[in-house]
Amino acid sequence: MPDIVRIPAKEMKEMFHTILLNHGLEQSRALLCAEIFTNNSVDGVYTHGVNRFPRFISNIDTGHVNATATPSLKYKFGAIEQWDGNLGPGPSNAVRATESAMQLSTEHGIGCVALSRTNHWMRGGTYGWQAAKKGFVFIGWTNTIGNMPAWGATDNRLGNNPLVIAIPFEDEAIVLDMAMSQYSFGAMELAQMKNENFPVYGGYDLKGELTKDPAAILESRRPLPIGFWKGAGLSLLLDILATILSGGWSTSEITKREVEYGLSQVFVVIDLSRLGNHSLIPTLLHQIIEDYHQSIPQDEKKNISYPGERVMKTRKQNLTDGIPVLKKIWEKIEQL
Amino acid sequence: MPDIVRIPAKEMKEMFHTILLNHGLEQSRALLCAEIFTNNSVDGVYTHGVNRFPRFISNIDTGHVNATATPSLKYKFGAIEQWDGNLGPGPSNAVRATESAMQLSTEHGIGCVALSRTNHWMRGGTYGWQAAKKGFVFIGWTNTIGNMPAWGATDNRLGNNPLVIAIPFEDEAIVLDMAMSQYSFGAMELAQMKNENFPVYGGYDLKGELTKDPAAILESRRPLPIGFWKGAGLSLLLDILATILSGGWSTSEITKREVEYGLSQVFVVIDLSRLGNHSLIPTLLHQIIEDYHQSIPQDEKKNISYPGERVMKTRKQNLTDGIPVLKKIWEKIEQL
Repeated sequence: MPDIVRIPAKEMKEMFHTILLNHGLEQSRALLCAEIFTNNSVDGVYTHGVNRFPRFISNIDTGHVNATATPSLKYKFGAIEQWDGNLGPGPSNAVRATESAMQLSTEHGIGCVALSRTNHWMRGGTYGWQAAKKGFVFIGWTNTIGNMPAWGATDNRLGNNPLVIAIPFEDEAIVLDMAMSQYSFGAMELAQMKNENFPVYGGYDLKGELTKDPAAILESRRPLPIGFWKGAGLSLLLDILATILSGGWSTSEITKREVEYGLSQVFVVIDLSRLGNHSLIPTLLHQIIEDYHQSIPQDEKKNISYPGERVMKTRKQNLTDGIPVLKKIWEKIEQL
Repeated sequence: MPDIVRIPAKEMKEMFHTILLNHGLEQSRALLCAEIFTNNSVDGVYTHGVNRFPRFISNIDTGHVNATATPSLKYKFGAIEQWDGNLGPGPSNAVRATESAMQLSTEHGIGCVALSRTNHWMRGGTYGWQAAKKGFVFIGWTNTIGNMPAWGATDNRLGNNPLVIAIPFEDEAIVLDMAMSQYSFGAMELAQMKNENFPVYGGYDLKGELTKDPAAILESRRPLPIGFWKGAGLSLLLDILATILSGGWSTSEITKREVEYGLSQVFVVIDLSRLGNHSLIPTLLHQIIEDYHQSIPQDEKKNISYPGERVMKTRKQNLTDGIPVLKKIWEKIEQL
């Protein structure tokens, strides 16, 4: 295994903040983005936290991410708003879109913000937590560059288009954050580096056979959609919705550009406090999760956990021990 | 293979209509339900059309479906309505909920109806087509009785909770209608009857090993969620949302009752004509589908089709040749 260093969250955030200021983000936005990259890492989502930070900076340097652009409202009707991300940073654009969707839902019960010409939002769960911690239900998704084939096809015309659903629960949240591919390319690269196979099929090899070998999938560039034809279909529909609701670029358009930028995203938020039964919701939720936790595990040493549940343990550990970072990645960041 | 008869759609609808009138549905509702069961069969979804009709009648006879109950509005705030299905027929309740969500979306851009105490809506795609054919985007889902385990578990505490997304396209629609299990129990029974294995894993056998044998899955009652932990997580979140938004029963509550009734459902609709870019949407859609159709198929004899595309061919064929029905099922229906 490669060398790991443990970086305290505070130190990571300050490092990111300084670098972002040096690369043209204004003060409050640099702080917001530094917090998001750090928190994603604290929660164990390193692929969309510390590991991805150098690429974010490089996208600013090449101009694919405009460090100073802010999103602007294009159109509004009732509980729907269409925003132009103006190619600004994906995380700050997504935070802004989530805020607007929350505001709309407070006025109308439900609100929808569709955002065109934005950039990679890193970990989609970030915005789910943002809304759910304040009592809102969040349903959001993004399109991506083509990185997954249609069902039965060999070339990548679909994105893996992550879908996020978040629900307030006790003082925290239940957060599902799932791409439409069984494994991300980040997960494949990590497994390959560790010389490990996946526990279930992750894609096809060059011969068109299903395989658990990450190296074979990286070679064929044919990751497996979740549920085969089902995940491929869901990916297509999420891309279509993001594109037509925002008036932005589809996966097909983004893929023409080689570098992934100018994404389309959707943020649907529901204000639970506006519902007739809002005072009963905590009890309903408690009953569902209590029953779920009574599931009989196949392996009796393993607990059955809901999406987002294990994050709490990782968060606590990383806040105590520092965030584990590949030494060579941290060294790269120190030179940015 | 068992004997098949071909029943003209008109004859099937009239037969259903007569039987529904005889079992207590009033005239217009009997006609609506007869049409839905017939159209589902015309579109090739026999498991939620003609094959399921006898069970629908039996649920009326046992009182789990109240033939004369109509849904009532419980609460309204802005673009959200909460309805009580009063245990009426699932299909007519869902049509009503979709109409209300469409109306809300025309007023507010987006509308959400959450429906408690309803019954099985048969083919969820029905309501997707209903909305999309009139120019609306539809996102809806239902919970079900427990029929799928949590990830890593052996007992069925999750439903397969079908999710439907529909988008208007040309004069028809793109309609995704997918349960969270890789195969439905109906598909398992059919494959077992034909003595066929599935092309991909469909669940676990009694030893806890993945299998493509439908008989082994029917024995273990452990179907596979799409994408393993991902589909199980999505199922849980869809159940929670349906339950808290409607104030109805969760899968956990429904499962206590042995017979599946009293479901919770969500209908989110967006009126595309209310968007700033609405006149450009047909072009965007056309571009996406044109690119999608250019996918390179692994098997060059096969076309790459979008969700709902192949339905058109089945529809045309069944309208011309009659709907193929297992002889023993049609004989059973003739005696209802």
